Amino acid sequence: MLGNFTYCNPTRLHFGENALDQLGAELAGYGKKVLLTYGGGSIKRSGLYDEITAILKEAGKDVLELPGVMPNPTVEKLYEGCKIARDNDIDLILAVGGGSVCDYAKAVSVSAWCEEDPWDKYYLRMEDVDNRIIPVGCVLTMVGTGSEMNGGSVITNHEQKRKIGHVFGSNVMPKFTILNPVYTFTVPMKQMVAGIYDAFNHICEQYFSGEDENTTDCIAEGLMRSLIESSRVAIRDPENYEARSNIMWAATWALNTLLAMGKSTDWEVHMIGQSIGAYTDATHGMTLSAVSMAYYRFIMPYGLAKFRRFAVNVWGISPDGKSDAELAEAGLAAMERWMNELGVSMNIRELGVTEDMLDGIADGTFLMNGGYKPLTRDDVITILKASM
Amino acid sequence: MLGNFTYCNPTRLHFGENALDQLGAELAGYGKKVLLTYGGGSIKRSGLYDEITAILKEAGKDVLELPGVMPNPTVEKLYEGCKIARDNDIDLILAVGGGSVCDYAKAVSVSAWCEEDPWDKYYLRMEDVDNRIIPVGCVLTMVGTGSEMNGGSVITNHEQKRKIGHVFGSNVMPKFTILNPVYTFTVPMKQMVAGIYDAFNHICEQYFSGEDENTTDCIAEGLMRSLIESSRVAIRDPENYEARSNIMWAATWALNTLLAMGKSTDWEVHMIGQSIGAYTDATHGMTLSAVSMAYYRFIMPYGLAKFRRFAVNVWGISPDGKSDAELAEAGLAAMERWMNELGVSMNIRELGVTEDMLDGIADGTFLMNGGYKPLTRDDVITILKASM
Repeated sequence: MLGNFTYCNPTRLHFGENALDQLGAELAGYGKKVLLTYGGGSIKRSGLYDEITAILKEAGKDVLELPGVMPNPTVEKLYEGCKIARDNDIDLILAVGGGSVCDYAKAVSVSAWCEEDPWDKYYLRMEDVDNRIIPVGCVLTMVGTGSEMNGGSVITNHEQKRKIGHVFGSNVMPKFTILNPVYTFTVPMKQMVAGIYDAFNHICEQYFSGEDENTTDCIAEGLMRSLIESSRVAIRDPENYEARSNIMWAATWALNTLLAMGKSTDWEVHMIGQSIGAYTDATHGMTLSAVSMAYYRFIMPYGLAKFRRFAVNVWGISPDGKSDAELAEAGLAAMERWMNELGVSMNIRELGVTEDMLDGIADGTFLMNGGYKPLTRDDVITILKASM
Repeated sequence: MLGNFTYCNPTRLHFGENALDQLGAELAGYGKKVLLTYGGGSIKRSGLYDEITAILKEAGKDVLELPGVMPNPTVEKLYEGCKIARDNDIDLILAVGGGSVCDYAKAVSVSAWCEEDPWDKYYLRMEDVDNRIIPVGCVLTMVGTGSEMNGGSVITNHEQKRKIGHVFGSNVMPKFTILNPVYTFTVPMKQMVAGIYDAFNHICEQYFSGEDENTTDCIAEGLMRSLIESSRVAIRDPENYEARSNIMWAATWALNTLLAMGKSTDWEVHMIGQSIGAYTDATHGMTLSAVSMAYYRFIMPYGLAKFRRFAVNVWGISPDGKSDAELAEAGLAAMERWMNELGVSMNIRELGVTEDMLDGIADGTFLMNGGYKPLTRDDVITILKASM
C-alpha cells in the first residue's frame, strides 16, 4: 500500500544525440563564474572537453577548472573544491563525467558555504542543508548511479574507512543535465556493465521491501525488463544507440526518487558494497554485484511473495508446478545467469577483499531496517563469507 | 528508438491520506489573493470545502470564489474567470475538483493577462504563452485526466462546436497538487470507471505509436498492468484505499509527459472523442471508450508488432500457436472484456450520437499523424459507424 509522500523532481533533462545544443541556453540562467569539474583525461580524449569549453566561452563565462575527481571522491578532494568555489564565489558548478563527478559537484555545492566541517555535518550526521547552495549542472558520460537526476552524493573518507552517501532534497538536485547516449559508447566494457548492474541494483533495493505497491512495483518491473533486454544488446554491440539510450533512460528513472515514493526501501546491498569500497576502492557497481546473490538468497525466505513476483514478472518464469520457494529461486538463478552474461564481479575476493578485512567491513556496514530481514552484524559476516 | 527530447516536470505532489496537511506550507509561497475554483456542490457535501477554506483563512488569504466549473469547461466560463482574476489581481488559483477544474484553472492562469481573445490565441492557434502566468495549485478529487501534473487544458466552444486541448509547457504545470485517494471514494461509479479508462487510454495513445522504445514501452506496460489489476478491485470495493491509491498514482504518471518523451504519439482516439464531446457533452472518458475498440481494430494491421507486444506484456497472453494477427486480436479482445467489466460505454449511440451528427463529428475531428494509420475523413466516418 502506498503511504504518504511528497514527490518533486525539478531537474531539466536534455536527452539525445543533440542534447549538448541546449547547454548554451541553460548557461544563460546563471552568473559568469563557472567551476568546471571532471575526472581524468577521458573527456579530453573524446573531444567533449573542447566542445564544452567552446560553449562556455561563447556564453561569456569565466571558467575555473577542477579536474581529477576520482571514481570514489574523497573528503580531501571535497575540501579542495570547497575552497576554490568559495574563494571564487562560483555561480554554477558544471560536472562533466559519470556519477562520481556528479556526486562530487553536489557535495561541493552544499559544502562550499558550510560554516563547519561538511564531512561531519552532511555525511556523518546527515543534517539538512541550511546554508547557501551553489547550483549544479551535469553532462553525463557514464551511466549507472542516477546522480544526474537526484540529490544523492557519496563521499569517501579513507582515513576513517567510511564511504557515506547522503541523499539531499530537491533543492540540491542538478538544475539541468545533458544526457547523450553517444558519450557512453567509449566507456570500457567493465565500467559499462558495472554501471548497468548499479542501476539494476538501485531498482532491487527499492523493489525488495514492503508488501504490494502495485503501481510502483509495476514501474520497477518494467525498468528491470528494459535494462535486462537492452544490456544483452549492449554487451554484444556497445555502439548500439538504441540499447545505450534505453539503458541511459532506465538508469535515470531507477534512482530519481520515483521508485521509493510511499514505500519502504532496503539499501543493504549498497551499505555492504560501500563498506567494501572503503576498504578496496573497487568499482562501485562491482561491489554490489559481488555480494548480491549471497544477500538476496539470504533474505529471500523472508520476502517470498515479492521474490515470487520477481521471477514471474521480471524473468518471465512460469509458476506452473513450482513451490513458492522454487519459483523464487528460479528468479534469482535467472538473475545470476544474466549477471554472468554481463561479466560483473560475482565474488568479493576478486575485488581485493581478504579474510582479515571481513570484520572491518562488517563494522563499517550501516545496518538498515527496510529489508525483508534486517541484518545483524553476524548476518553481514555470513553474507560476506558466502561472497568470498 | 528514443529521439531527442527535453523532460522537465517541476510539479510538487503531496500524496496520501494526510496530504492536505501540506497545503498551508504551500500557500505561504504566494501572495494574499487566492481564487478558489471548483465545480458543483460535491466538495461542500464531502466537507472538503470547509477544510480548505479553514486552511486558507489560517494562512491569512483573501479568497475569491469561482464555483460552477462544468465537466467540459466552456469558453464563456473561461472569459468569466479571466475577468475575475484580472480585476482582482489574483496571486494564486487554487483548483479543487477533477480534471475539468484543473484544466480550467490552467486556462484562466494563461488567459487572464492575455491581450487578445485567449480562445483564438491559445486554443485555435495554440500559440506559446508570452504573457504573465498566474500560478495554479490543485486539490484533486477525481482521477483520470492527469491534469494535476501536466500543462494540458481542454476548453469547449459550443457555438463553434469545437473542444480543443492545448498542452502548455512546464511553466504552466501546477506548482503543487494535493493527491488524497480518499477524496475519490465518493465519486459515482460511472465517473470512476470513465476516469480509469481515460487514464488507460492516455497510455494507449502514447504506446500505440512508433517502433520500439524499450524503456518507455516497459514503463507504459507496467502502468497499464497496474491500472487493470487495481481497477478490478475498485469496481468491487470502491473504498479500497490500496486500489484507489494505485489508480490515482498510475493515472498521474499516465499523462505527465514521461510516456511521450523521445517518441511519436497517436492521440486520434482523443481527437474523435473530443469531437463527440463537443456534440453531446458526454463524459470525456466515455467518448474515448465508445470509439476505442473500433479504432484499435482499424489501425491494428498497421502496427502489428506493438499490438502483439501489448497482448503478451500487458494481458499475459501466450504467443504459442498464434499468428501475429491472432495474437494482436487476442490482446484487443482481452482489453474489450476488461472494458465490459468496468462498464464503460462501448458505443456512441448511448452517448446521444445520432446518424445525422456523424458528418459534423468527422469534420470536427483533428487528423493527427502519429498513429500507425493516419486517418482520412472517410476513415473517421468508418470508425464512427463501427462505434454506433
